[in-house]
Amino acid sequence: MSDKKGDLISYRPDIKLLDATIRDGGLVNDFRFSDEFVKTLYETNVKAGVEYMEFGYKASKELFDVNAFGKWKFCDEEDIRAIVGDNNTDLKLTVMADVGRCDFKKDIIPSDESVIDTIRIATYTHQMPGALEMIDYCHDLGYETTINIMAISASKDEDVKKSIELAVESPVDVIYLVDSYGSLYPEQVRELTKMYCEAAEAKGKKVGVHMHNNQQLAFANTIEGIAYGASYADATMSGMGRGAGNCYMEQMLSFLKNPNYKLSPALKFVEKYIAEEKAKGSVWGYDTPYMMTGALNRHPRAAIAFIKEGNTDYDGLYQDLLNELS
Amino acid sequence: MSDKKGDLISYRPDIKLLDATIRDGGLVNDFRFSDEFVKTLYETNVKAGVEYMEFGYKASKELFDVNAFGKWKFCDEEDIRAIVGDNNTDLKLTVMADVGRCDFKKDIIPSDESVIDTIRIATYTHQMPGALEMIDYCHDLGYETTINIMAISASKDEDVKKSIELAVESPVDVIYLVDSYGSLYPEQVRELTKMYCEAAEAKGKKVGVHMHNNQQLAFANTIEGIAYGASYADATMSGMGRGAGNCYMEQMLSFLKNPNYKLSPALKFVEKYIAEEKAKGSVWGYDTPYMMTGALNRHPRAAIAFIKEGNTDYDGLYQDLLNELS
Repeated sequence: MSDKKGDLISYRPDIKLLDATIRDGGLVNDFRFSDEFVKTLYETNVKAGVEYMEFGYKASKELFDVNAFGKWKFCDEEDIRAIVGDNNTDLKLTVMADVGRCDFKKDIIPSDESVIDTIRIATYTHQMPGALEMIDYCHDLGYETTINIMAISASKDEDVKKSIELAVESPVDVIYLVDSYGSLYPEQVRELTKMYCEAAEAKGKKVGVHMHNNQQLAFANTIEGIAYGASYADATMSGMGRGAGNCYMEQMLSFLKNPNYKLSPALKFVEKYIAEEKAKGSVWGYDTPYMMTGALNRHPRAAIAFIKEGNTDYDGLYQDLLNELS
Repeated sequence: MSDKKGDLISYRPDIKLLDATIRDGGLVNDFRFSDEFVKTLYETNVKAGVEYMEFGYKASKELFDVNAFGKWKFCDEEDIRAIVGDNNTDLKLTVMADVGRCDFKKDIIPSDESVIDTIRIATYTHQMPGALEMIDYCHDLGYETTINIMAISASKDEDVKKSIELAVESPVDVIYLVDSYGSLYPEQVRELTKMYCEAAEAKGKKVGVHMHNNQQLAFANTIEGIAYGASYADATMSGMGRGAGNCYMEQMLSFLKNPNYKLSPALKFVEKYIAEEKAKGSVWGYDTPYMMTGALNRHPRAAIAFIKEGNTDYDGLYQDLLNELS
């Protein structure tokens, strides 16, 4: 295999895990997590040796009703501090800010006044100028930044390439390969990761991967991405995340050989808190409808609605999806 | 990527799908399927363009109590014929016979008297002489044969290589790469498949892949196996199979671009019959305990027992598994 980095026994110190349970999982329950859930998750990540924990979004309170969502949609500084204090740990804290859906000039304070370490900027290719403005702004405030270019499987190759070219010329630290629709296959992830890494490494930047499980490929794609050069891997506890969900943190802690990583704290968290979250009615994970939207390279919204309705006419959904293509 | 065959748009006519739902799924419910389930599955496979359907085992009635299992543990000729008649379709029918657990000289009749097309011989490396005897016997009776060398992840490399060397010198038609413990990663599957194919193709034989989902890698590993040269891919409806189950047939029908394959019949089968099977209490599929046995390269029996007991002390299981290793 050309360009493969690392092997199954040793470990690469450049690889870092990011727990996105609250942020991506918040899309399942409108960010309504108990403080105990979030606090225990924070402690779990510290014990497990996870390098980053994402608390949620910095969403605009002009655009979104604060009463319609839990607090992690907005991630006020005092709400994070109520969980982590001054965060006297090695765990770095992140929030995500969507281009066009946040008031970053109002809501993002200088990094030396914040417990947040890293701002992750989520963008579509057509929003790149807005993303670059946010990167500059957050970088100047002292934050580490990442750019998460979404829905690339549904974008033109040249738009993705141009977006990467723009990103590597910015002060951003990490460029994320994001499979928003869970439609990429491992062989595509290998080629894309190599392309991202070649562009990023030339400018001293790192690459991350964020995969979805629509085709039961989130873990496979994540380990392929890191095998071919990505350094940052997103995962969530038991894959909690919108629709088919994400790469499972337990699997990453089990797979990676860095002696800092401990699986036991994650297993204990899953036993109690993920079980409770499911008992509350939160639904995520691989299911037949997600396989269809993933394989057809479509946003999962039709599958999410289908499952929410309790519909099981899988072939009807499949025919609808095919008809929309034609 | 070196040695990669095919791409994501075209199709390779050498690739054939084998539905193992009754055989591997039978390990979940002691082979107690209704005739309607089996008959509809047969019709579904014909409509979906699947090339092979496995009915079950040819198990010894001396070693196994016929009252303790459904009929597909034994696959009597008349039971298969009650479903398929003379099988006037393009679907080939298979049964599996385990070395040391069948009375092949008594129970396997000449192929021109049987509706069965293919006998699949399952063996461990230490049983290879017995497997070769069965291959010769079944070949002489006129059957197509496959050899499924199990638990290779827990075997010595030299034993696996020697087994393949012996198999390619036999009259067997297909040599299967089997990930019994669901412990292989895609990068290992690529290398193993290339090794199997090199040996097999030199003698005009084909390679197949049979993957388990302990680490949510059954689909990923199956498509990696075929991308690197395997021609036969096993799958089951919704992954029904022992423990974490198998590669999902729906996913294979969705992924492969052969115009003969139709996804809709499989979706209809899943909607009604897989839902009913689950409602009956049959349990399979990825779960945390299987991740551990897969990652630790262990037989899933401890995980199966743990789940059957309703135990959720995942970390306790993990510590037990680690203690057994030391």
